[in-house]
Amino acid sequence: MLKSSDIDNELFLGIDGGGSKCKAIVMNKDNQILGTGIAGPGNPLHGFEQATNSITESAKLALEDAGLAHIELNELIAGVGLAGVNLPVLFDKMQSWQHPFKHMYLATDLLIACLGAHQGQDGAVMISGTGSCGFSCIDDEEFIIGAHGFPHGDKGSGAWFGLQAAKHVLLSIDGVIEPSSMNQVLLKKLNCKDDTELVEAIAGKVATYYAQLANLVFDAAEAGDKVALGIVEEGAEYINSIARTLWAKNPKRMSMIGGLTPRLKPWLAKEIQAQLSEPLSPPEVGSVLFARKQHAKLQA
Amino acid sequence: MLKSSDIDNELFLGIDGGGSKCKAIVMNKDNQILGTGIAGPGNPLHGFEQATNSITESAKLALEDAGLAHIELNELIAGVGLAGVNLPVLFDKMQSWQHPFKHMYLATDLLIACLGAHQGQDGAVMISGTGSCGFSCIDDEEFIIGAHGFPHGDKGSGAWFGLQAAKHVLLSIDGVIEPSSMNQVLLKKLNCKDDTELVEAIAGKVATYYAQLANLVFDAAEAGDKVALGIVEEGAEYINSIARTLWAKNPKRMSMIGGLTPRLKPWLAKEIQAQLSEPLSPPEVGSVLFARKQHAKLQA
Repeated sequence: MLKSSDIDNELFLGIDGGGSKCKAIVMNKDNQILGTGIAGPGNPLHGFEQATNSITESAKLALEDAGLAHIELNELIAGVGLAGVNLPVLFDKMQSWQHPFKHMYLATDLLIACLGAHQGQDGAVMISGTGSCGFSCIDDEEFIIGAHGFPHGDKGSGAWFGLQAAKHVLLSIDGVIEPSSMNQVLLKKLNCKDDTELVEAIAGKVATYYAQLANLVFDAAEAGDKVALGIVEEGAEYINSIARTLWAKNPKRMSMIGGLTPRLKPWLAKEIQAQLSEPLSPPEVGSVLFARKQHAKLQA
Repeated sequence: MLKSSDIDNELFLGIDGGGSKCKAIVMNKDNQILGTGIAGPGNPLHGFEQATNSITESAKLALEDAGLAHIELNELIAGVGLAGVNLPVLFDKMQSWQHPFKHMYLATDLLIACLGAHQGQDGAVMISGTGSCGFSCIDDEEFIIGAHGFPHGDKGSGAWFGLQAAKHVLLSIDGVIEPSSMNQVLLKKLNCKDDTELVEAIAGKVATYYAQLANLVFDAAEAGDKVALGIVEEGAEYINSIARTLWAKNPKRMSMIGGLTPRLKPWLAKEIQAQLSEPLSPPEVGSVLFARKQHAKLQA
């Protein structure tokens, strides 16, 4: 049993750990953000050491930012949302971490994004950033669609758009498909003078590399380029499918999040755009809401 | 100036170095194969040390197999055909190798495949193995189409068919596209019980991994599976395009080679199948034919 004075003093840490960075916030009991910290990649797919170092480092930076450098990590109740832990092997690995916090509640990046977007309430999210997927959490039941990864999945994501651009530009330069205004734009962006240099430049590249090419597809589509239009329509149609599948589950709210949202949302079907609500809070706030709920259950 | 007695004694080495193995043959002046050797990967994309070791080792094994273990490598005139050296940086790197042979003549895997298929004469080849491309050599002018690599190119190759299978199975399990008989077959082949395990299994896999999945797409298509039929028809249509582009260059002969040929050829357009001639010799013989030609030019 906790005394109410303990609860009053409780500080929560919210972590959003992705493939490119790990974000931490410290929140007080009134859900005020006291400080923020950012460190390196927090996705355990890129290594357990890297992920746990990034989580610890971003937490310390958030405490410092809050003017709470005197507080120890073992005084914090941490909600840790991580990309990659939808894979059971990585979830177990992270769960077995001898973490420095008072308590740690581990969740997928999808769950915390959804909780953040809907302020801890039931709902659904479509995500299109470097990767893509759909997720809903209704009556404590989680549902995922997509989230398959690169290059075999993540249709409609930044990496997918970039990969399509590279594929179509190579086919277009070869004359197998029609000419595209993307051909010269892509070569220039990657500092290549021809397709041989392009093949050399993109050999073995990862999702984040391709994701940087997504904008040029939307630029070309918006200027009427047929090849780009075909790519954008195919990507949007997949996200439409995701949305329809999620909507069939009757979420109270549905949001679209992720870095590609501003470019992709206008291309979705009108009725789907109309179903979308603005996300209320970012994923790291969702991590705190998750930790609060789990912690209350355990203390009850 | 060479004396005719020197020419009579000349032994040629033919190398076909690819991503999975390096094959060597020793040939006498009458184009008789005296011995064969096989070593590890010979594609310098996977490392210069590995490639040069594989070339040297396969050459020694070929001499041994020929009962010529007393012959030194520096008595051999080597034709070395390698995957990867279509990239200028890798060509220069291999060309600068302090090789152990009397002479070394370096060529792409495409050129030696084409020379082999047409017994040193002008012609064209479509290749579908782990990767795919088209190539012609007519009046000393080389032309390449495709050969873009994985995962952004190599449509109609084994790796491409396998990647499409994985993509479509994941979409089908998600209900975004229709059910396919490939779903269970693929899960079983990769020892996965569901899509989560499948995503885990294929994360970060390379072209050769995907290429092992190509046959199940053809099996399913031949049994009438609609999803598989769509994939096979798309892959075949790309190879048809390659063939039409090559045929427009008026090659004397055109062949299809590579491990996927027996499965894919029956799906090509009838008029393209009718244009194809059987390859006359394998690529390593093409390497010797190339070395002979280059060597004669230099001695002239």
